[in-house]
Amino acid sequence: MNGISVMLSGAVLLLLYAPGVYAQGKNAVPPSAPLSDGTKACIDCHKDLHPGLVQDWLASRHAKITPETALKTPEAGRRISATSVPEALRSVVVGCYECHTLNPAAHKDNFDHADYKVNVVVSPNDCKICHPTEAEQYGGSKKASALANLDNNPVFNALINAIDGIKEVKNKKVVALKSSEATKHDTCYACHGTQVVVKGLKTVSTDVGDMQFPELVNWPNQGVGRINPDGSFGACTSCHPRHRFAIAVARKPYTCAQCHREPDVPAWDVYHESKHGNIFLSTEREWTFENVPWVAGRDFFAPTCATCHNSLLSTPDGAMVAARTHDFGSRPWVRIFGLIYAHPQPKSGKTYMIKNKDGLPLPTTFTGEPASPYLIDKDEQIRRLDQMKKICQSCHASGFTNGHFTKFAASIAESDQMVKAATLLLQGAWDARLADKSNPFDEAIEQKWTKQWLFYANSVRFGSAMMGPDYATFKQGWWDLTNNVADMADMIRLKQGEGTRGHR
Amino acid sequence: MNGISVMLSGAVLLLLYAPGVYAQGKNAVPPSAPLSDGTKACIDCHKDLHPGLVQDWLASRHAKITPETALKTPEAGRRISATSVPEALRSVVVGCYECHTLNPAAHKDNFDHADYKVNVVVSPNDCKICHPTEAEQYGGSKKASALANLDNNPVFNALINAIDGIKEVKNKKVVALKSSEATKHDTCYACHGTQVVVKGLKTVSTDVGDMQFPELVNWPNQGVGRINPDGSFGACTSCHPRHRFAIAVARKPYTCAQCHREPDVPAWDVYHESKHGNIFLSTEREWTFENVPWVAGRDFFAPTCATCHNSLLSTPDGAMVAARTHDFGSRPWVRIFGLIYAHPQPKSGKTYMIKNKDGLPLPTTFTGEPASPYLIDKDEQIRRLDQMKKICQSCHASGFTNGHFTKFAASIAESDQMVKAATLLLQGAWDARLADKSNPFDEAIEQKWTKQWLFYANSVRFGSAMMGPDYATFKQGWWDLTNNVADMADMIRLKQGEGTRGHR
Amino acid sequence: MNGISVMLSGAVLLLLYAPGVYAQGKNAVPPSAPLSDGTKACIDCHKDLHPGLVQDWLASRHAKITPETALKTPEAGRRISATSVPEALRSVVVGCYECHTLNPAAHKDNFDHADYKVNVVVSPNDCKICHPTEAEQYGGSKKASALANLDNNPVFNALINAIDGIKEVKNKKVVALKSSEATKHDTCYACHGTQVVVKGLKTVSTDVGDMQFPELVNWPNQGVGRINPDGSFGACTSCHPRHRFAIAVARKPYTCAQCHREPDVPAWDVYHESKHGNIFLSTEREWTFENVPWVAGRDFFAPTCATCHNSLLSTPDGAMVAARTHDFGSRPWVRIFGLIYAHPQPKSGKTYMIKNKDGLPLPTTFTGEPASPYLIDKDEQIRRLDQMKKICQSCHASGFTNGHFTKFAASIAESDQMVKAATLLLQGAWDARLADKSNPFDEAIEQKWTKQWLFYANSVRFGSAMMGPDYATFKQGWWDLTNNVADMADMIRLKQGEGTRGHR
Repeated sequence: MNGISVMLSGAVLLLLYAPGVYAQGKNAVPPSAPLSDGTKACIDCHKDLHPGLVQDWLASRHAKITPETALKTPEAGRRISATSVPEALRSVVVGCYECHTLNPAAHKDNFDHADYKVNVVVSPNDCKICHPTEAEQYGGSKKASALANLDNNPVFNALINAIDGIKEVKNKKVVALKSSEATKHDTCYACHGTQVVVKGLKTVSTDVGDMQFPELVNWPNQGVGRINPDGSFGACTSCHPRHRFAIAVARKPYTCAQCHREPDVPAWDVYHESKHGNIFLSTEREWTFENVPWVAGRDFFAPTCATCHNSLLSTPDGAMVAARTHDFGSRPWVRIFGLIYAHPQPKSGKTYMIKNKDGLPLPTTFTGEPASPYLIDKDEQIRRLDQMKKICQSCHASGFTNGHFTKFAASIAESDQMVKAATLLLQGAWDARLADKSNPFDEAIEQKWTKQWLFYANSVRFGSAMMGPDYATFKQGWWDLTNNVADMADMIRLKQGEGTRGHR
Repeated sequence: MNGISVMLSGAVLLLLYAPGVYAQGKNAVPPSAPLSDGTKACIDCHKDLHPGLVQDWLASRHAKITPETALKTPEAGRRISATSVPEALRSVVVGCYECHTLNPAAHKDNFDHADYKVNVVVSPNDCKICHPTEAEQYGGSKKASALANLDNNPVFNALINAIDGIKEVKNKKVVALKSSEATKHDTCYACHGTQVVVKGLKTVSTDVGDMQFPELVNWPNQGVGRINPDGSFGACTSCHPRHRFAIAVARKPYTCAQCHREPDVPAWDVYHESKHGNIFLSTEREWTFENVPWVAGRDFFAPTCATCHNSLLSTPDGAMVAARTHDFGSRPWVRIFGLIYAHPQPKSGKTYMIKNKDGLPLPTTFTGEPASPYLIDKDEQIRRLDQMKKICQSCHASGFTNGHFTKFAASIAESDQMVKAATLLLQGAWDARLADKSNPFDEAIEQKWTKQWLFYANSVRFGSAMMGPDYATFKQGWWDLTNNVADMADMIRLKQGEGTRGHR
Repeated sequence: MNGISVMLSGAVLLLLYAPGVYAQGKNAVPPSAPLSDGTKACIDCHKDLHPGLVQDWLASRHAKITPETALKTPEAGRRISATSVPEALRSVVVGCYECHTLNPAAHKDNFDHADYKVNVVVSPNDCKICHPTEAEQYGGSKKASALANLDNNPVFNALINAIDGIKEVKNKKVVALKSSEATKHDTCYACHGTQVVVKGLKTVSTDVGDMQFPELVNWPNQGVGRINPDGSFGACTSCHPRHRFAIAVARKPYTCAQCHREPDVPAWDVYHESKHGNIFLSTEREWTFENVPWVAGRDFFAPTCATCHNSLLSTPDGAMVAARTHDFGSRPWVRIFGLIYAHPQPKSGKTYMIKNKDGLPLPTTFTGEPASPYLIDKDEQIRRLDQMKKICQSCHASGFTNGHFTKFAASIAESDQMVKAATLLLQGAWDARLADKSNPFDEAIEQKWTKQWLFYANSVRFGSAMMGPDYATFKQGWWDLTNNVADMADMIRLKQGEGTRGHR
């Protein structure tokens, strides 16, 4: 090899390295790894019908590597958790055919298409062939049960219907209807997942003549707890969007931000205003989002959501800092949103199985008593907190880390006290017959109480957890916790006719 | 050519290719294409007076290419829609002199400056010399009439004055003054455009002695419906900011986000939390924003606003997917914001010419009956929806696309029903003399009604249209539609003195 | 040097130039400049304990240059303001040991650690050794006194306690407790700074045996007015986050956005929707954030916060446009947030020393009369406005700039009138004994008044100052100023029992 060819290969390397080149169609040539005949057939038509989809896949890792080759990667850096892969899939890249034809008997959305039997929806149970650990962890998480946890809980059902039902005004009275599938699909189920149902086959006239396709109801949807036509739960595409399925996207906070944002779950918003978010937003272009394991100080310089909540982390020397998990509830010790009071993480992802002292599937009573048998115990909480601190200590001293979490614990307790105050005011209103407790979500004062825990207490806790000052203070935080209590008290006085009596 | 010089040119190419180099002053050398004497004279002084402005222009495409050369580009990739350009402009780059001296007779802002007669404001009518198709399309759009559509509509006038007028408290009563020009300029007209008026000439002392400049009123402004000193309507700089005028900026959602954001038009906010926004935010650094036509899967991997609403799109093979349009209302079939109910797109951009059954220039009555003669008919709606689906199908199957739009249609209908409920409550309050209908925007309960359609129903529709779960649910969506109706009903009961009677 | 080696070095240069390389661990090799023995000893252990921290520092400028070399940079481009540096620090890079061992006698957080005496917290007084001008400017700013200005002002104390105190419901009455340290730390003090107090030493068991560390209270915190264990005020890390301390981060708006965001200080939010923000967000990847001085048209193409408020700016030819300042109140002429009315900038950063006509440490009375002796005079206001205009004129003509600031002045006056209206309504309620003025922040109607100035008037002023249309209009702007007055008037009527009388 002479000097000039060294330079040439150097130039080629540089070309590949330059940002922008990777995705600009330069990879959109047939990959060098072998495609199956099935995938070739799919691409043959679909590259013209849905070019964006096909090009996106061509730029994916799936299009460039066979499971056989992937299995040869040293374990720490492997993205495939199967120890072996069925022979038919082993030596071709992971293409259309490979993913869309698995487990046809289970797939009610399977249909005859050209010479193949194809599934419309690819489910976690399909991805499981190469990624069994991830599928199993995810299956046990609250995410996989996100739809079931709503549908099987009468309290959440009442909340959904109160919010989503059309209101009609009849004889000057407001009458609420039951919420429609379309609106639930647009709202709660957009994140929690829909149940995708196959209604039958539908004839569609296409450029190549009439064709039959399954007609799916509650589709499209990428909610985390989607119930798929094969009966499985979840959608890997919630975080690994089609058809690139890139780890880099899943590691960016923009992905989590789709659902975890204000007013109910202000994780993204708090991150954005935190020092970590400040550093991410200012320097993310210099980071590497593809490396496995992911290394603080080499690949990234502040945590994203994935860093603390699921990624495989190691030191630059390769010592493990945190194991990868796709059970997103398995790292936190406390659950700070979505319910009336903060509480230890539930033991099972199926939260509808909880029973509190009032017999409701809620992790605490309305006055805050935890349903302890269903929640992780003190030892497990400490174990998880210690594990989280280990991640922080990649960049922070122990005094810094401990100080942070001590403050966080105090703030959780105080936010719960502020919810308790609102709850006592509401109970007073119920007792005085100023409101009707039969549905706790459908009157103005009840909706103020709901905001106290569903929006404001959450903001304070996220603001404390991730150091976002504004969400703890003026933006849905302490200001609103306080103002809401004052408004509730004022509303009660007015309803009691005390407005005219001068100052209380 | 020997090996080494091949390498050298390769290195130069790489250098030009590397992001960051393009704009880092490296282009801020005199462009190779010829500058007119006029432009040279402008730059001679202004490069020191306003270096940022001049350098920005030097980095623009305008500074690098003559209309003559541009006209030789194959039609599909051409950015100039004129088929010929006046001789004086043809063989020089598009510089200061070329744009700021056109149509001097029409320009009330034309003034003697050094040895030239210069216009302060460059208008769409000036840009039209090279971009006639764009100027004409834009001229017919609602954007071009955005100021006229406010000023010629008494309902919008009442709303503007209700919002923007200073409130004084006299004898414990609130008195509203008429809104000032400054505040209208800061608020509604910032997006809709001001009328830029020339008050006369003003002497300014400068480093080179006293000079006279036109004094403009309601300036600066880049609103889309600006009325310019030459009598033309609009501002190309709304989306193509000075003095780079880059197509890349116009194609990024940050541009549309200036005006199309919550609470009244939450397009940006919904996009940010959608899967499309997630992909854009996570991978935009790998995309190409300059190519014409713009190709899904080659240049971009998720749509931005421009993709669906105005860009020229083709397949990788060059088949047209959508023609470019600068009439931004010409692609959508339904209008989902800004008015009391959703309705088919108006036929004309001059919406003040609409007359509904109540004689008002609104596309529906207060109870939702459409002013059909002024709105596109069913066939045209279907044609447009089909065209939009074609864009979606660059990446999505027809079942996916159809499922999406079916849900969207249902959600539009439901959001309208929620507005109707609030409207009936307000009419009840008016009838019971709990509020005064003479101005429908100036009392607390009327402002709740206004929020129902102007903020919350819009959020639900945008959330449904672009799959933004939170804006459909808790962030100004169904939660607020519902809570607002409960608050209005509560307010009415309190005003009727029913507060003390125990529960309704 | 032959042709091939020219090419090689070219390739290396390109490699260094490519974004992404800089931070991807490639620099995480021992820097070529000499490390002190102390710093070597620190790194020896801490590279394993806190690898992210150490790698971040290794990528910093501090790790690459000695003060001696820095002092040789021509003055305009120098980042060090000391004219000489103590000999011990002069010829080694700025490492762990150099910063964490200064002024040990003053540091109550100094402790014996391995063979060294180390401070936990590095303070502005430590940074001052190399950056005296910055430390001194900062010391005189409102930022440095941000905690003191809260703690020494009884009005702000009342506001903090009203917001942050836990509310309990006893006998159906709301009782407010005093706010806790944890919550103040999470909220107001997160931005304003905590007082970091050393409680004593604490034994921690580590991998290398038991060790003693100082136990700090109100730590961690990076608030701008932090009171440090050495008695100094402020935290350089608020804007220059550890351990890179990059000027590039401080110049990005994401940094200021941590505290300056809605609802109380919507600077970031307004910037985001402004044309400047539009250009920044669309093109920042092409800008240079490291150059000193910073040059419009060469390095950046629209201002960020730092451009107008503190950076050293020059023309491409090196003529100074604005001197660097770390007293962030020294450029603006008017103060548009945080207080009841807009007012001229205070003369001193210690605003608690102001005394208005009512004897309170506020820059105006409740009805708007300024405490003029404590505020800059008209001449100084004009001088500062002219200086700001000079920055604008890097890219804008004088007519454009003047038109903008004329509008801004009018909008400030109008926003003050809207606050006055709310104040008169509140005073009417106090007079009628519908509310109790002893604490002006703890009742529902008082909190509405607080929102009028603390949220809505600020939004209008920021929206006008930086051309953010939505924040001036519907998002906390004129809409809310108006709606809030209507709500207050309605609330007063209801409290007076006027609800039943039909329309006013």
